[in-house]
Amino acid sequence: MAPTSATRTETDSFGPLEVPGEKYWGAQTQRSIMNFPIGWERQPVAIIRALGVIKKACATVNMAQGDMEAEVGNAITAAAQEVIEGKFDDNFPLVVWQTGSGTQSNMNANEVISNRAIEVLGGVMGSKKPVHPNDHCNMGQSSNDTFPTAMHVAIGMMARDTLLPGLRKLHAALAAKSEEFKDIIKIGRTHTQDATPLTLGQEFGGYAHQVAKGIARVEMCMPDIYELAQGGTAVGTGLNTKVGWDTRVAAEIAAITDLPFVTAPNKFEALAAHDAMVMFSGALKTVAASLFKIANDMRLLGSGPRSGLGELILPENEPGSSIMPGKVNPTQAEALTMVCAQVMGNDAAVGFAGSQGHFELNVYNPMMSYNVLQSMQLLGDAAGSFTDNMVAGTQANTTRIDKLMKESLMLVTALAPTIGYDNATKVAKTAHKNGTTLKEEAIALGFVDEETFDRVVRPEDMIGPKG
Amino acid sequence: MAPTSATRTETDSFGPLEVPGEKYWGAQTQRSIMNFPIGWERQPVAIIRALGVIKKACATVNMAQGDMEAEVGNAITAAAQEVIEGKFDDNFPLVVWQTGSGTQSNMNANEVISNRAIEVLGGVMGSKKPVHPNDHCNMGQSSNDTFPTAMHVAIGMMARDTLLPGLRKLHAALAAKSEEFKDIIKIGRTHTQDATPLTLGQEFGGYAHQVAKGIARVEMCMPDIYELAQGGTAVGTGLNTKVGWDTRVAAEIAAITDLPFVTAPNKFEALAAHDAMVMFSGALKTVAASLFKIANDMRLLGSGPRSGLGELILPENEPGSSIMPGKVNPTQAEALTMVCAQVMGNDAAVGFAGSQGHFELNVYNPMMSYNVLQSMQLLGDAAGSFTDNMVAGTQANTTRIDKLMKESLMLVTALAPTIGYDNATKVAKTAHKNGTTLKEEAIALGFVDEETFDRVVRPEDMIGPKG
Amino acid sequence: MAPTSATRTETDSFGPLEVPGEKYWGAQTQRSIMNFPIGWERQPVAIIRALGVIKKACATVNMAQGDMEAEVGNAITAAAQEVIEGKFDDNFPLVVWQTGSGTQSNMNANEVISNRAIEVLGGVMGSKKPVHPNDHCNMGQSSNDTFPTAMHVAIGMMARDTLLPGLRKLHAALAAKSEEFKDIIKIGRTHTQDATPLTLGQEFGGYAHQVAKGIARVEMCMPDIYELAQGGTAVGTGLNTKVGWDTRVAAEIAAITDLPFVTAPNKFEALAAHDAMVMFSGALKTVAASLFKIANDMRLLGSGPRSGLGELILPENEPGSSIMPGKVNPTQAEALTMVCAQVMGNDAAVGFAGSQGHFELNVYNPMMSYNVLQSMQLLGDAAGSFTDNMVAGTQANTTRIDKLMKESLMLVTALAPTIGYDNATKVAKTAHKNGTTLKEEAIALGFVDEETFDRVVRPEDMIGPKG
Amino acid sequence: MAPTSATRTETDSFGPLEVPGEKYWGAQTQRSIMNFPIGWERQPVAIIRALGVIKKACATVNMAQGDMEAEVGNAITAAAQEVIEGKFDDNFPLVVWQTGSGTQSNMNANEVISNRAIEVLGGVMGSKKPVHPNDHCNMGQSSNDTFPTAMHVAIGMMARDTLLPGLRKLHAALAAKSEEFKDIIKIGRTHTQDATPLTLGQEFGGYAHQVAKGIARVEMCMPDIYELAQGGTAVGTGLNTKVGWDTRVAAEIAAITDLPFVTAPNKFEALAAHDAMVMFSGALKTVAASLFKIANDMRLLGSGPRSGLGELILPENEPGSSIMPGKVNPTQAEALTMVCAQVMGNDAAVGFAGSQGHFELNVYNPMMSYNVLQSMQLLGDAAGSFTDNMVAGTQANTTRIDKLMKESLMLVTALAPTIGYDNATKVAKTAHKNGTTLKEEAIALGFVDEETFDRVVRPEDMIGPKG
Repeated sequence: MAPTSATRTETDSFGPLEVPGEKYWGAQTQRSIMNFPIGWERQPVAIIRALGVIKKACATVNMAQGDMEAEVGNAITAAAQEVIEGKFDDNFPLVVWQTGSGTQSNMNANEVISNRAIEVLGGVMGSKKPVHPNDHCNMGQSSNDTFPTAMHVAIGMMARDTLLPGLRKLHAALAAKSEEFKDIIKIGRTHTQDATPLTLGQEFGGYAHQVAKGIARVEMCMPDIYELAQGGTAVGTGLNTKVGWDTRVAAEIAAITDLPFVTAPNKFEALAAHDAMVMFSGALKTVAASLFKIANDMRLLGSGPRSGLGELILPENEPGSSIMPGKVNPTQAEALTMVCAQVMGNDAAVGFAGSQGHFELNVYNPMMSYNVLQSMQLLGDAAGSFTDNMVAGTQANTTRIDKLMKESLMLVTALAPTIGYDNATKVAKTAHKNGTTLKEEAIALGFVDEETFDRVVRPEDMIGPKG
Repeated sequence: MAPTSATRTETDSFGPLEVPGEKYWGAQTQRSIMNFPIGWERQPVAIIRALGVIKKACATVNMAQGDMEAEVGNAITAAAQEVIEGKFDDNFPLVVWQTGSGTQSNMNANEVISNRAIEVLGGVMGSKKPVHPNDHCNMGQSSNDTFPTAMHVAIGMMARDTLLPGLRKLHAALAAKSEEFKDIIKIGRTHTQDATPLTLGQEFGGYAHQVAKGIARVEMCMPDIYELAQGGTAVGTGLNTKVGWDTRVAAEIAAITDLPFVTAPNKFEALAAHDAMVMFSGALKTVAASLFKIANDMRLLGSGPRSGLGELILPENEPGSSIMPGKVNPTQAEALTMVCAQVMGNDAAVGFAGSQGHFELNVYNPMMSYNVLQSMQLLGDAAGSFTDNMVAGTQANTTRIDKLMKESLMLVTALAPTIGYDNATKVAKTAHKNGTTLKEEAIALGFVDEETFDRVVRPEDMIGPKG
Repeated sequence: MAPTSATRTETDSFGPLEVPGEKYWGAQTQRSIMNFPIGWERQPVAIIRALGVIKKACATVNMAQGDMEAEVGNAITAAAQEVIEGKFDDNFPLVVWQTGSGTQSNMNANEVISNRAIEVLGGVMGSKKPVHPNDHCNMGQSSNDTFPTAMHVAIGMMARDTLLPGLRKLHAALAAKSEEFKDIIKIGRTHTQDATPLTLGQEFGGYAHQVAKGIARVEMCMPDIYELAQGGTAVGTGLNTKVGWDTRVAAEIAAITDLPFVTAPNKFEALAAHDAMVMFSGALKTVAASLFKIANDMRLLGSGPRSGLGELILPENEPGSSIMPGKVNPTQAEALTMVCAQVMGNDAAVGFAGSQGHFELNVYNPMMSYNVLQSMQLLGDAAGSFTDNMVAGTQANTTRIDKLMKESLMLVTALAPTIGYDNATKVAKTAHKNGTTLKEEAIALGFVDEETFDRVVRPEDMIGPKG
Repeated sequence: MAPTSATRTETDSFGPLEVPGEKYWGAQTQRSIMNFPIGWERQPVAIIRALGVIKKACATVNMAQGDMEAEVGNAITAAAQEVIEGKFDDNFPLVVWQTGSGTQSNMNANEVISNRAIEVLGGVMGSKKPVHPNDHCNMGQSSNDTFPTAMHVAIGMMARDTLLPGLRKLHAALAAKSEEFKDIIKIGRTHTQDATPLTLGQEFGGYAHQVAKGIARVEMCMPDIYELAQGGTAVGTGLNTKVGWDTRVAAEIAAITDLPFVTAPNKFEALAAHDAMVMFSGALKTVAASLFKIANDMRLLGSGPRSGLGELILPENEPGSSIMPGKVNPTQAEALTMVCAQVMGNDAAVGFAGSQGHFELNVYNPMMSYNVLQSMQLLGDAAGSFTDNMVAGTQANTTRIDKLMKESLMLVTALAPTIGYDNATKVAKTAHKNGTTLKEEAIALGFVDEETFDRVVRPEDMIGPKG
């Protein structure tokens, strides 16, 4: 950009650059915009907010340690708080596809916060006085520990605020349906083929259990996410920090976020690898596999209205087709299964990137966090939408369920102890061939009378082990 | 939304809804916003523009066939042209995670175009008169054929306009470097270990060949992308179209885009599966594997400045570190390798989704096109940025290259025919043990004199087959 | 192993080793057995046979060039021919998880062939005279070009002999079913929900088209597979070969295999990357996506016998259940879908490995070829088995198909032009609510008489565009 | 097969079949051989042994419950014990690619055990008397719960016996190297470029920590694996069992295997999904990502001998090249990285399959267990081999390490507090330009004397936070 009244000159060690006058960022941010014209994916807001958390925590500890003057430190924490609150979201223009350490987004945070602090303190933006982006905002920090810390902080907050609430809402709805449907006996299906009966409540109970386990799996992985790299600085040694700084910063971050963050026990591992995120992504993929199965089952059980399985009546949320009335498209199941497929792809990307660290640093940071955060946002949102717009309004088509169940040939199983396996087989095969019922053929073949059949063939006795 | 002066009432078969007064979309778009609060990923602009292309082409054919009045048809083509030109990009608010057929984005296009046409014709927006979103904008179409067509049209245009130009630029730069470096003999490395020599030009020639093949692979897959589903309507039969309509629409789309689109020979396959996109994504993944290898090699060859391989001098684009001068971080290689990892993840997602069609329709449309288009945008952009900001400015550190090559123990190979394999082995092992040169030890051991050594051990004779 | 009467002493540059007396392999093979006790996966037979092809071709060219005496050369070609014919399959004990260049398997071939040649010529096995495993069997070769060549040769042969025959058989069967079912009109399903009709022949025609395209995609990728690395030797330069040797060896390999192999135009690329295999694997994944969709559809269409869709009658190949007669489990579809899932995983592994070459060599050779060959074997075999044991015996349940189609509410579409969209809607909604037929309600509501209904509502007019 | 003296007639409900006379399997196994000629991958031995465990446990509980006579039950437990001990491994000929429920492998176990029990009891093999494969060996069981149980039992045993021992061995070796190398200060590398120093012990400590976490992650996932589906029978209801049977069988399996197996709390989930395995596979992938990074680092740090980084001296295990002495190929790192790539591909396959259950059953059992078990076997074996043949023998090249570290320009960081950042920059840039040392230029530029330089620039003070 050429200098104009609408721009401001900012400088870094490569020289001066014009930046938009109404923005707070500096030269390194601007240079990244110029050098990385790649794609449409910006750093997620969750990362920006997490950088705010870190900058606030570090300044607080630096003041407490006596390494930073209160005036500067307080201006930084105030500006960082504004970042946390989202006031500067539009001052973080950088894309995901930048330096793999996230250095430029860390500098973006340093530049915005220092310029905002300068502004509040009455200084000249771009002057780096009295608040310097590196010397003050980045004090005791390196991008190499700061960005990985931001990744974990962002994931921790998104798990609590988006992912887990979405999953818990879905679990509650499925569990409620399991209870609601507990007395509806239906035909089971294995290999997609008719099998012995179970209750619709049992079927939904399996779904609910899958989601409950998924929540537990996510929670099981959180302790590794709560470990923060901050304090490792450039290569994990903690050069340029004091003993105990890492622990104090982690405690401060825990206080700000109200999440149990701690300092990572091994900073070399925390910079050079992101195994905690690879594992966490694996848990997300497992949740995706569960939700895919549930959504797919529900749309098949709700298929019809005339030519499908027709056991569930799914809520109608929007016009299905301008041609055919009564067509309910299970669009929420489609959104959710698309999300699950995306999460599986993201997991493959995360695993690949996680393996590719070189020596003291993994340089796939922005890409890994983008994928994990996207997976979390999508699963949390889609679980919530699927619950509200599909599960909650799903009804059992009890007439259809009962008809299919009673027509089923596999009920013959109950007859076998009375008339013998071979005779039972004959009943079933004849009914299959003639398209009749078991009862009709059992009576016609002379094996039982109606009363006996009705007494013996009781689906309600087939849905659990013998007492 | 409650009705206000800032809103407009639109209706669909579910009833009336308030939409923002300044927007052109209608009730079905608004309903999708409400029903799918999932994620942050909107339909890519490329899809929106492609829907504009289709709507224009269909209206043109419908007029030519005599099924649509000129006044209505011309208003539609004019509005669609505005969509093509990007004037209504901000009127397409829907996210990727909607109905899997893309129905709502198709309706979004129908609603925006019909309202815009109504506006131009002096009607009342929302009245559906004289231009109806379904009856006119969607005439002869179903979302089931329209959205897949939009996917292919978007891919075709992005291949021509973004992906292939990026790859071609990279190929040209690598080929130029191959020529520039053709006389620089360097040590080869296999298993990461020292091996026999080659020229730096040969090394870059291998990279250039990879990219050339990648371009050819993408081009090889285009004919399947050029096949359009349009004309299959609801289930592939072409119900509600006339014989030949599909061919005429494809020709019209080809004319608008200047790309060789044709009608798909089997519409059932074109709706129920997206194998062409799975295959195309595989080609993108292959390109990603190539570019990953090139970027990774270049950053390792450029590692240093003191403690790495140091054969390449990479351009310095931004401050590497506030601590250490001379540190050049290969940030462009990092952006590119992150992109490649993303493309691999996207490919896994696309393959999964491609396998999941049910009966007459695959309902992973928006998610599949989102991934393929993202991969294309990222590869095209990153290839261009990597070329401009890294490959173009890369220089050979000829001093370092020459030193490493001449010190190499594997040059002993050339001595073997003269002094025998066993003696050559002794020379090499002694030099390795003593940390000396082959020449020193060969002479010291009395196997050759200096003149003979210099005549026989000639790396320039080791870089090709014997003439 | 301690020396016994059952062992033979073999040596390499690390010293002597005992090998089993009845085996032909030498010290380097034995050392690999000791150093790599990893997993249960041996080098596929296809690789072993391909190494035989290469050794025969190279010896033939070396003789023709005058670099190898006829006695030695003929003994090598004879022994190599035995390897090609499978006589020494049990002399290749090495696992996939060895050196990433496949060096040890190349040496395994050299050792077996040289010892066999020595035996035939009356020499002492292990003496390396008169046929040396390196000097003669490996003349003009390096593992770095030989193993990649073996990979391509193995893939070429397996494509012709296993993969493509399996796919062609499946295509023929699906095409035959498409013809057989061409007059059976059935309900279509989109979003898993009832939609407008098509013929069962059209549905199978879509499947057949998918397979036909899959065959074309595999064939489209073959030219890159036909390019051979042989002649690149250690790093791609062709050191230790003569100009033209590469071309002559490729021609010889083409003659032996009757496949159009040629020498790779860029040997640096051919050693350092395996993009051709990554692309080929992408084609296999695309085939897998197609076959998954087909198998999944068929088992759902064949679900039942009472409580499923029941449109197809699948052949019964084995007892389904000891409990329930009439239960047909679509086990062939299960085997095939498992195969497809495996191919997708293999593709992810291949893409990952393909990106990981360093400098002049990719060292994931045995793992990449293992995965690609496994995918090919599985797809070819499973396609054949699925054809023979499922597709060929599949019958249409025309009674069921006709009933579902005629009951379908979407046939109302045909009535709309006659009685208007609103009245047609009323007919459909009433029928849906009452569980009656369109005809009943259309007449009861007084919109049409029976004759009119029967004349207008004709599914056979809904399965294509208007003439 | 035609009946011969070498065959025996076995029957199932489809009729009689000839089986090899010396084998114990029956008609259903033989039928599977005929119907599934797919691939080369047999059911892993771990599955076969686990089926033995289950058959023994169930017979024991059935006897204790009074449902099975002691003579029959004891013959079954004795035969099952032989299966556990591996005596019948060659009687399990079935491939992975069979029915997706694993029914045929379950029947294979039933047939072998019943025939062996018959033999011991003096009966006629194939007569099903006095021990019936279904009525006795499968009593209280369905393939639908038995095969998933076998999967978990096999995984539990392989984790204890192969995977975890391999990882623990590797961890111990890396931890020992970390201690051995604790005083060796070396240059750090970030972005592949020179950075501030750390100790080689710290670097290996990071590796050791990765493996320790990997072990913890695997262990963290075991409780879900210890949950057994047994007792769910056909669809999860437990039809045909008694209350408490599931708990007793799990306790018996725990006793046999000495692993803490318990009955799954929700059998519907346990049959219809395999989320526990998807999650477990994610842990394996995380381990693979860790090991990949470690192996890749080590081969790069050991690159050379002359033209690489050369900081590590890797053990030489086999001839590297017949041409060049001193070439050590890091073949163990290659085997391990190939294994890691395979595990990533397997994880993709497992996640895909895990999402694809339909209704009451997931029918990807044999494929999922094949992949998980392969991943475990490979990781355990390769970790062990990598430890024994590479890590254990790795030495530090202290001369080279010290030279690179002392030449490094980033040591200038220590000088900055004394002479100022700008002067320090001048020192570093001049040294970089002239190819000299920091010390030379610092003195030449007159900023410090030699004594001061030596006192201030102390790498040993840069490897941790300030005390």
